[in-house]
Amino acid sequence: MPQVAFLECSRCCLHHDATTPQTVCTACAGSLYVRYDLSAATGTAVRDRIGTTEQDHRWSGMGRYRDVLPAVDPVTLGEGWTPMLPSRRNGNVWLKEEGANPTGTFKARGLALAVTMARHYGLKKLAAPTAGNAGGALAAYAAAAGMEAHIFMPKDTPMANQVECRAYGAHLTLVDGLISDCGRMVAERSPKEGWFDVSTLKEPYRVEGKKTMGYELVEQLGWEYPDAVFYPTGGGVGMIGMWKAFLEMEELGWVSGRRPKMIAVQAAGCAPVVRAFQQGQAASQMWQDAHTAASGLRVPKPYGDYIILDIVRQSGGTAVALSDDTIFASLKDWASHEGLLLSPEGAAATAAYDHLIRTGFLSPDETVVLFNTGTGNKYTDVIGARV
Amino acid sequence: MPQVAFLECSRCCLHHDATTPQTVCTACAGSLYVRYDLSAATGTAVRDRIGTTEQDHRWSGMGRYRDVLPAVDPVTLGEGWTPMLPSRRNGNVWLKEEGANPTGTFKARGLALAVTMARHYGLKKLAAPTAGNAGGALAAYAAAAGMEAHIFMPKDTPMANQVECRAYGAHLTLVDGLISDCGRMVAERSPKEGWFDVSTLKEPYRVEGKKTMGYELVEQLGWEYPDAVFYPTGGGVGMIGMWKAFLEMEELGWVSGRRPKMIAVQAAGCAPVVRAFQQGQAASQMWQDAHTAASGLRVPKPYGDYIILDIVRQSGGTAVALSDDTIFASLKDWASHEGLLLSPEGAAATAAYDHLIRTGFLSPDETVVLFNTGTGNKYTDVIGARV
Repeated sequence: MPQVAFLECSRCCLHHDATTPQTVCTACAGSLYVRYDLSAATGTAVRDRIGTTEQDHRWSGMGRYRDVLPAVDPVTLGEGWTPMLPSRRNGNVWLKEEGANPTGTFKARGLALAVTMARHYGLKKLAAPTAGNAGGALAAYAAAAGMEAHIFMPKDTPMANQVECRAYGAHLTLVDGLISDCGRMVAERSPKEGWFDVSTLKEPYRVEGKKTMGYELVEQLGWEYPDAVFYPTGGGVGMIGMWKAFLEMEELGWVSGRRPKMIAVQAAGCAPVVRAFQQGQAASQMWQDAHTAASGLRVPKPYGDYIILDIVRQSGGTAVALSDDTIFASLKDWASHEGLLLSPEGAAATAAYDHLIRTGFLSPDETVVLFNTGTGNKYTDVIGARV
Repeated sequence: MPQVAFLECSRCCLHHDATTPQTVCTACAGSLYVRYDLSAATGTAVRDRIGTTEQDHRWSGMGRYRDVLPAVDPVTLGEGWTPMLPSRRNGNVWLKEEGANPTGTFKARGLALAVTMARHYGLKKLAAPTAGNAGGALAAYAAAAGMEAHIFMPKDTPMANQVECRAYGAHLTLVDGLISDCGRMVAERSPKEGWFDVSTLKEPYRVEGKKTMGYELVEQLGWEYPDAVFYPTGGGVGMIGMWKAFLEMEELGWVSGRRPKMIAVQAAGCAPVVRAFQQGQAASQMWQDAHTAASGLRVPKPYGDYIILDIVRQSGGTAVALSDDTIFASLKDWASHEGLLLSPEGAAATAAYDHLIRTGFLSPDETVVLFNTGTGNKYTDVIGARV
């Protein structure tokens, strides 16, 4: 396992010390990337050992990528190494089933590493705003690490998210507003209360945990890239993490060829990245009156919008927004024809795939990975009202 | 992968043909076991190849045990190979996290194989009574296989179970009664309607799918037995399947030593196996006025009670019933100290462990596996009302 060498600003490239907790770039407030000397992991010999070692025997989850993760004793609940399932209707379409993670969503990967590093740095009290699932994951990993979690969540977040936070013993504040309002409250109170703010992209390790999705999807396709990746984009951390993973894997000689087109998927009721993409802007504008039953997509201005937009463009991808009706029709379609109860956010990805086939942006013989970011089980109230 | 040689009655040992669909023993109505010629899998060379082959590369789940499962094209949603997590408070205590399965519970294993074999036999319409989670799993796998599912469920089953069945497109009947009432309705209507009844232990393959839990827990402990296994016992299929797995593994030379004490865990409001165990009886009596918020344990008379009781006694185990208050106290304890939101049934197992430590039946230095049979996410309404 490699030592973290330094943290590098995603915007101005300034280096920051990794021996103490860092938030964002001290010069320009950009998000920080974790950088290592990965030379010990170079080559396919290291790659092909993955999953075969004694440590992988029980269940190593995302720990199978320990060669490219910080050399720190992990706080783990069994996150990662989730199923990659071929669609029964088109074998070129793969569903990455993130609902199999602890707490039932992809948020487990990022928070597992953020809490691991917080414990490593000796922090005791963590705080975060959340659209729902990140709060549940933070509450779970903080409980496992014996730390306090202070969570701010819109009051109309699905019931499962509220119940899990309370069960894990987190301090939960329900807010009459959106995640952006929650974020302001966390930013205001954290200095006074002695909380460390683990907001999306305001500390470097959630991206680092999420990058394992990039390693996994390439490994699960036999160390080859797909043609496109569909990613439900709220905060967009996973897309940023996967793109970092692709870069690292190329440097390591673990994969080569054309990187996938990255497709940012949002809901029509909250689509700041789609609008900015269409208007050719480098960053997004705050989306007014955000509303969608895909609660994880209710992020009116992602902090890392400039990175997301850059990735979508670099990759030759696109950004797509779907109506809630279209999203739930796809959810019902995948449940009844594939036997998979997706989250509404995951169903936005499946709906976006159908849309881009219809428009001809993609053809059915291209290999694609669709991210189901969470289990439909956490949306019983939302899905029950619609199906 | 081995061919099924024949089906053998668990009670009178009569053999049945495996080339056509079978239900229970034609002579004595006992449950049928699947028997193979497993000689090709004998020895540690086969064992040590598990998980390393090309087929295991993407995500093989319980397919990693294909050497001991029927040689039939599987209907899979990514079930099995779930995390085995050490307790943070006692490293001898392992939590087997079955909530990571498709549909969020251990039921996926049994129904995956039952539906696989039903498709193999050319069946089109399946039916089952359920306490909740088996219904969800049947609905999912039937949808994946393009088959009809007819599900009968008590009307006060948790909301998640009702919603998932409808989303998967199953035909759901809510019944003012218990699973035993549902079972009678399925038995009555199936012949008229042309449904194949996949009730617990009334067809041979749900046990066969559940046996993979036995293979997994032994593999995940480095091909060694634990001292005890705590199993929330509704229908008890998993205990029967695991015991079969232990026998097979010994014959294959994959494991040796003393088999674990098998602990049947029930709720005080529905404890037919515990009562029969304590009274020294070979089978249970119907439990009157069954009630518990651990809905999966609301099975007033398990069909395989005689097998379960035999296993518990043979293994030197015991049977324990806990009050709902004790169960939910343990659920809260594991959420807030371990970061794991268990199902109420899983929390019955953790509560039973604490109980048997207090009574001295087990000591803290014994290695135990506690089964969390499902994710707490499917019990948001139930847990929310109690935590």
